[in-house]
Amino acid sequence: MLACSTVCHRCLQVKATSADTNLSEPEAEPKARKLKASPQLKRWSRARALRSGHRLERPGHRGEALELKPRGQQTKEVDYSEHGQEGNDDDYGVYVATAKSIYMVSDGTGWTAEHSVSAALGQFDHCLVDRGCPVNTHLFSGIDDAEKLMAIIKQAAKEGAMVVYTLADPSMAESAKQACKLWGIPSTDILGPITEAIASHLGVSPSGLPRGASGRSSALSEEYFRRIEAVEFTIKHDDGALPQSLHKANIILAGVSRTGKTPLSIYLSQKGYKVANVPIVMGVDLPKTLFEVDPEKVFGLTINPIVLQTIRKARAKSLGFSGEARSSYSEMDYVRQELEFARRIFSQNPVWPVIEVTGKAIEETAAVILRLYHDRKHKCTMPRISKRY
Amino acid sequence: MLACSTVCHRCLQVKATSADTNLSEPEAEPKARKLKASPQLKRWSRARALRSGHRLERPGHRGEALELKPRGQQTKEVDYSEHGQEGNDDDYGVYVATAKSIYMVSDGTGWTAEHSVSAALGQFDHCLVDRGCPVNTHLFSGIDDAEKLMAIIKQAAKEGAMVVYTLADPSMAESAKQACKLWGIPSTDILGPITEAIASHLGVSPSGLPRGASGRSSALSEEYFRRIEAVEFTIKHDDGALPQSLHKANIILAGVSRTGKTPLSIYLSQKGYKVANVPIVMGVDLPKTLFEVDPEKVFGLTINPIVLQTIRKARAKSLGFSGEARSSYSEMDYVRQELEFARRIFSQNPVWPVIEVTGKAIEETAAVILRLYHDRKHKCTMPRISKRY
Repeated sequence: MLACSTVCHRCLQVKATSADTNLSEPEAEPKARKLKASPQLKRWSRARALRSGHRLERPGHRGEALELKPRGQQTKEVDYSEHGQEGNDDDYGVYVATAKSIYMVSDGTGWTAEHSVSAALGQFDHCLVDRGCPVNTHLFSGIDDAEKLMAIIKQAAKEGAMVVYTLADPSMAESAKQACKLWGIPSTDILGPITEAIASHLGVSPSGLPRGASGRSSALSEEYFRRIEAVEFTIKHDDGALPQSLHKANIILAGVSRTGKTPLSIYLSQKGYKVANVPIVMGVDLPKTLFEVDPEKVFGLTINPIVLQTIRKARAKSLGFSGEARSSYSEMDYVRQELEFARRIFSQNPVWPVIEVTGKAIEETAAVILRLYHDRKHKCTMPRISKRY
Repeated sequence: MLACSTVCHRCLQVKATSADTNLSEPEAEPKARKLKASPQLKRWSRARALRSGHRLERPGHRGEALELKPRGQQTKEVDYSEHGQEGNDDDYGVYVATAKSIYMVSDGTGWTAEHSVSAALGQFDHCLVDRGCPVNTHLFSGIDDAEKLMAIIKQAAKEGAMVVYTLADPSMAESAKQACKLWGIPSTDILGPITEAIASHLGVSPSGLPRGASGRSSALSEEYFRRIEAVEFTIKHDDGALPQSLHKANIILAGVSRTGKTPLSIYLSQKGYKVANVPIVMGVDLPKTLFEVDPEKVFGLTINPIVLQTIRKARAKSLGFSGEARSSYSEMDYVRQELEFARRIFSQNPVWPVIEVTGKAIEETAAVILRLYHDRKHKCTMPRISKRY
């Protein structure tokens, strides 16, 4: 097991001050942090940007010049293994390279912060792990008192991390903002601007209570039960099971093995749709019921044969297939024939949209399917998925 | 089937102008929109806020006074049924009451916008459907050209909607901002501020490409396969299945029927954790393997007996249970005894944390479990879940 990370609440020798008063500078490197943009740092940033193949100042970027504020920390590469931190995380691989940190702080689950940061990082794929500019995110959820909040922000300052936060309590949000400002930490309030815009739009003030705070009972809503039912339905109808009740599904996915039917079904079920998935296997008859249901709810999945073969080889290896089983599953001839077999079925059912999943993440394929699903319901092509809150 | 919604791309008689030039006023109610904050509107907003039991100007709200800018549309309650729009949506119930609209526009899947808006709406539970101030959200995903973008923003202006957007292409984001400004539509760029903060932190410009744009191949990453494997493992180990391979799970959930084990397992699996769940049924022995695995990965779930009975009654009804089966499942005595049976098992295994799920959404319970899971790995109490990008 690991030594405790430096931010550990038990181990940290910090008397965190109360939120609004007495914000002291964190101990580490106060001088370095006072450097704002020395010519050397600018050169360093530019060199780094050039190494990663991207110009720093993109003309027209969001209509504003991107103002870079390199801080002291940028000159120092933080080596986590040295800190004994994240050096041994089974889930996410061995952390040895230097990395920039992003602290995500939430008074709730933190999933909004995580989701938003992950989406924003999608804009930096050209310079993340593969290109030598890795980023470590650290999620701190359920942070509901000022003391914990300050301890985390202090640690962020030490580590040269940036801080993004979602804090429903306005005084907590303000404390985070002020502490980050004082300590020169770049920070972003993720939900504040949307919440304020919505407040203005509705003419109602936000409650200031984090989701899950006592007195909230939204968990047992109709929506909640609908989602649970959808997940349970989808699990029961995975991989061609229970073909007799296909008609009860909202969405039916059909495709050859390893087109991602299962994870896609599950993803959709969590959004409240009952999904069944039916495998297409060369030489095996599809269930009759698939052709008896409303064809508007059936979606075919297809994939590039070379990519499919790669995926199947990995699958065969992980399942320990050998000899004949392996070859008939992942050999190129077989892969092509099976895809052709699927193609013929799809062309005999022209109402089924056929979705190319090659290179798409599960979420992306799900977005395409739901767009089509809702468009068909409303007989429109403009993608619109509506919900009532 | 429905008549086409007014924003439908095919039906809309709009010659959308190109993004950067010639932004014309939308046809509907240009005069009303020029009203900025008439005394009448202010009174109306205040009255509405008072009706919903909340003061409009909360002192200290995020350190700034909440500036209300009621627009013309606020005086007119939009009746969707009148527009033939959403009036018949099977998934989300019949939309008859008046509602405010939020348009979510994305060049990608739109899930980030949806997630953020849903989280922000968590701050307005006190005035949504139940309290007579419903909100309709409309998600427009895959909006990758300026023409579609302008058609949507124009429609938002007509409908008196606010617009939130995630657009990776800086010129699209700028167009959205300018168009909303010109037409007096409140708008929020969800990812822009975080993306800019990250750019500044890393010293690298964002790519400006939406996720899923061609040339991106992140879908076939190790992370992707890990997630698929976790989902498949979790489905196979639902509801006590395959107890012989419990040791392969990262997380094992144990609890009586209807404590939400299945949807919770699935939710965690989508985050890349292999989860098995084991039902506790009075008088039935738990699988031996549950007591042979590392107890640090087992989590007990418990729930308030009254809430559990309510959930079970609904379940028994939906499954069509009758007579004895129904009573032994959802009668209060039985419910209490079974929870007591579970409690005894938990107390015999003191290393298992017992999590109270009453009133918690799946995501909230998941956050608690992952916090404990990661804390135990790192022998810390400060909740931190780290990832590398």
